[in-house]
This record gives sequence, C-alpha cells and structure tokens, in this order.
Amino acid sequence: MLASPKQVRRDWEAGEVGSLIGRGLIDEMENESRNIRFFTKLYTFAQMLGILCVVLVGVWIGIYRGGFGWQAEPALQFNWHPFLMVLGMVFLYANGALVYRGFRSEKKKKLKIIHTLVQLGTFIFSVVGIVAVFDFHNAMGIPNMYSLHSWIGLCVVILFACQWLSGLLTFLFPGLRPSVRAAYLPVHQFFGLAIFIGSVASCLLGLTEKAFFSMPVSNPKGYNHFPPEGILINVIGILLIFFAGLVVYLMSNSQFRRQTSEDETLPVTEY
Amino acid sequence: MLASPKQVRRDWEAGEVGSLIGRGLIDEMENESRNIRFFTKLYTFAQMLGILCVVLVGVWIGIYRGGFGWQAEPALQFNWHPFLMVLGMVFLYANGALVYRGFRSEKKKKLKIIHTLVQLGTFIFSVVGIVAVFDFHNAMGIPNMYSLHSWIGLCVVILFACQWLSGLLTFLFPGLRPSVRAAYLPVHQFFGLAIFIGSVASCLLGLTEKAFFSMPVSNPKGYNHFPPEGILINVIGILLIFFAGLVVYLMSNSQFRRQTSEDETLPVTEY
Repeated sequence: MLASPKQVRRDWEAGEVGSLIGRGLIDEMENESRNIRFFTKLYTFAQMLGILCVVLVGVWIGIYRGGFGWQAEPALQFNWHPFLMVLGMVFLYANGALVYRGFRSEKKKKLKIIHTLVQLGTFIFSVVGIVAVFDFHNAMGIPNMYSLHSWIGLCVVILFACQWLSGLLTFLFPGLRPSVRAAYLPVHQFFGLAIFIGSVASCLLGLTEKAFFSMPVSNPKGYNHFPPEGILINVIGILLIFFAGLVVYLMSNSQFRRQTSEDETLPVTEY
Repeated sequence: MLASPKQVRRDWEAGEVGSLIGRGLIDEMENESRNIRFFTKLYTFAQMLGILCVVLVGVWIGIYRGGFGWQAEPALQFNWHPFLMVLGMVFLYANGALVYRGFRSEKKKKLKIIHTLVQLGTFIFSVVGIVAVFDFHNAMGIPNMYSLHSWIGLCVVILFACQWLSGLLTFLFPGLRPSVRAAYLPVHQFFGLAIFIGSVASCLLGLTEKAFFSMPVSNPKGYNHFPPEGILINVIGILLIFFAGLVVYLMSNSQFRRQTSEDETLPVTEY
C-alpha cells in the first residue's frame, strides 16, 4: 500500500524521507488527496440525491398514478415513461459520465468499456420509455410529438444515440488516430454535458405537462390549489435540478479529473 | 496599428523581422488571432439568434395574445411577463456575461462597470416581468407560486440578485483582497452559467404552461392539433436552446478568454 500524504509529510519532517522529495511535491500530494476526498463526499451526496429522485418518481407513480402496466392498460403503460426517463437519461446517464472520476484508479480501457455499457443501458431504458408514451398515445387516439417537451425530448435522445455511436467509433472500436481522439474529446465532453442538461430540462417539462393534465386547474383540487401530488411533482423537479447542478460540477471541475498515469501518456495512449 | 499575424509571418519569412521573433511566437499569434476570428463569428451568430428569439416572442404576443397592456387589462399585462423575461434573463443576461469576451480590448475596470450595469438592467426587467404576472394572477383570482415554473423561476431570479450583489461587493465596491477575488471568481462563473441555464429552462417551462392554457387540448384547435401558435411556441423554445448552447460554449471555452494584459497582473490587479 502507498503511504498517505500525511505519513509522507511526517516522515519528511522527521528527516526519514530525505531531501530527494521536495516540500512542493508533498504539498501537491496533499492537495490531490484533499481534492479526491472532497470529490468523494460530493459524489456520494449526488448518488443519494439521484436515488432519491428515482424513488420519488416511483412513489409518485405508485401513490397517485396507479402504478405500472403495459399495453393492456395504456394509462399505466404511460407511467413507465417518466420513471424510465429519470432512471435512464438522468440517473444512469450521470453515472455513466462520472465513471472516469468515480473509479479513477481503474485502467482507462476498462473504464471506457464500462462507460460504453452503462450508456448503452441508458439508451435501452430511454427507448422503452419512449415506446411506452407512443403506445399510450396511439391507444388513446392522442396525437404524438406536438408539445415542446416531445420535440426537445426526442432531439435529446437522438443526439445521445449519435454521441454514443461516435464515441464508440472514435475511442473504442475500431479506434481512430490518437490525434483525432484528442481533438474529438472536448467535443464529446461538451455534448455530453449538453445532452445531460437537455434531458433534465426535458424531464422538468414532462413533469409540468403531466401536472396540468392530471390535476386540471378548473378542478377544486387542481394543480393551482397546492394538492399533495402537485407539491410532490414540484419537489421532484427541484431535486432533479440540485442533482443536475452537482453532477455538472463534478463533471466539469478540472480538479476532479482522473490523472493520466505515465504508461497512458505513451504514443499508444487511448483517449 | 499593429501588424497582422499574417504580415508578421510574411516579414519573418522574408527575413525582415530577424531572429528575435521565433517561429513559436508567430504560431501563437496566428493561433490567437484565429481563435478571436472564430469567436467573433459565433458571437455575431449568437446575437442574431438572441434577437430573433426576442422578436419572435414579441410576434407571438402581438399576433396571438392581443399585444401588451398594464393593470387596466390584466390579460395583456401578463404578456409583458414572457417578453421581459426572455429579453432580460436570457438575451440581456447573456450579453452582460459575454461583455469580457466580446469587448476584450477594453480596460478591465470599464468592462466590470458595464457588466454590472447590464446585469442591473436585466434585474430591473425581471422584476417588472414578475410584477406583471403577480398583478395578473391577483386581478383574476389565480393563486400564485403553485407551478414548477414559478418555483424554479423565482429561485433563479433570487439567486441572480444574490450573485449580482456578491459580485458587486467582491469585485467592484468596496472590493476585497485580490486573493479572495481570485478564489471567488470560479464560483461566480459557475453560478453565472447555472443561473443562465436555469433561466432558459424556466422560459421553456413557462412557454409549455402558456401553450396548454391558451390552446386547451380539449379544443378542436388545441395545442395537440398542431395549430400555428403551438408550432411558433415550440420553435421559440428550440431557438432559445440553440441560443443557450452557443452562449454557454462562448462563455465556457477557455480559448475565448480575454487575455490579461501585463499591467493587470501586477499586485493591484482587479479580478
């Protein structure tokens, strides 16, 4: 096991490490270890928040929307849509994106494969979630793709499919030249963040639509009279925003980047 | 006038500049000038897109929502709300944030004052926009603050007021120690982006609410039957997203950062 930065500093101050290690290096080690500890705290908190969001969507569906079903019960089949989109395009997506920072000590190749597989799972959940809402609309004679939510949501999922495919072809199989990979990486990261933010925004739009549909404001217990279901929907929306803000911070802060080990910086490096 | 990087390279290749300037420096100058040209193109395009969004909101209000009014006509007073929020919290806000990159050759102190004043204008527009919707609700007996849109929107504006005030106190007047300013700058930038994304998301939610209110889906010409007003609202939403994506790219790409001139890096530097 490697000595902790604290141990190294103690040894150094006791003169046991000798002058080969300068104080600057010790400061740097301490800094990095502090960053990783801070990352781990935020990462754990984000995971709890993400799980809470998924559970609350399940609670909402279970208590107020009659639970889950499939084609025999169109209204219950619809219910898979919000659940799978939040579970897939928000929670799983964020976990897929954070794989490199959350499991920083693993080999890059392994992390890339995990990243690809988690995002494949995300994509499968989204497709089933989209099928659920199209089936529901078709069974009930409701037109498809008329709302802003549907336009944005479908664009986000299509963009995500393109992003997944170009990531696969560029970084994994068959793999392009390192210089091309290095040039594409920031584009992949920018769109990765954009797709995540877009999918959270789309969830908020979907929650709003469903709130106005299931609690018409003309009713005495409508959305505008602060019914418990309305409050729950709003709280889910606010928690999704906190989760998204935290994940974007963890994804974009360069202090939390996985350090490239020396053998990975050789010309055979995989980006 | 300074010679263009192209001119310098020609002179250097003709042996007229001499060996005092290395090829590396010329490459660097060319690189920077290329970045600035690319920035200027995207910045101009973003401005056009932003103006188009504001104009289209005005067209929507003018053609389909009866135009503008104040307390004598509550329904027309409401119409100021979407117009002022898009004009203020989206278009003006983005311009305030991009002041440092759009006018990079101006003195930092001057840019800070412009940034503060533009964002003060943004805040005033938002407050009038919020008054418009509260007045409308109160006149019509509609409860306030029940929807997810209202929760998110109000949080964003309150966060923006805090951000403006702490920016003023930290960077401008009375101004804190340079080390404190430097430490606060990334926080200010992160929340600056978060508030912008939050305000665009809030606009999308507001557009969705208004679409379902003004074109009830039970009507034969409802939102679900693709009426022209519905398409226009969706197009405004999509354009807002393109504008936001472009502005976030311009704000976050470090290649577009204003270079700190030498006199600004002295201990008296203003962050």
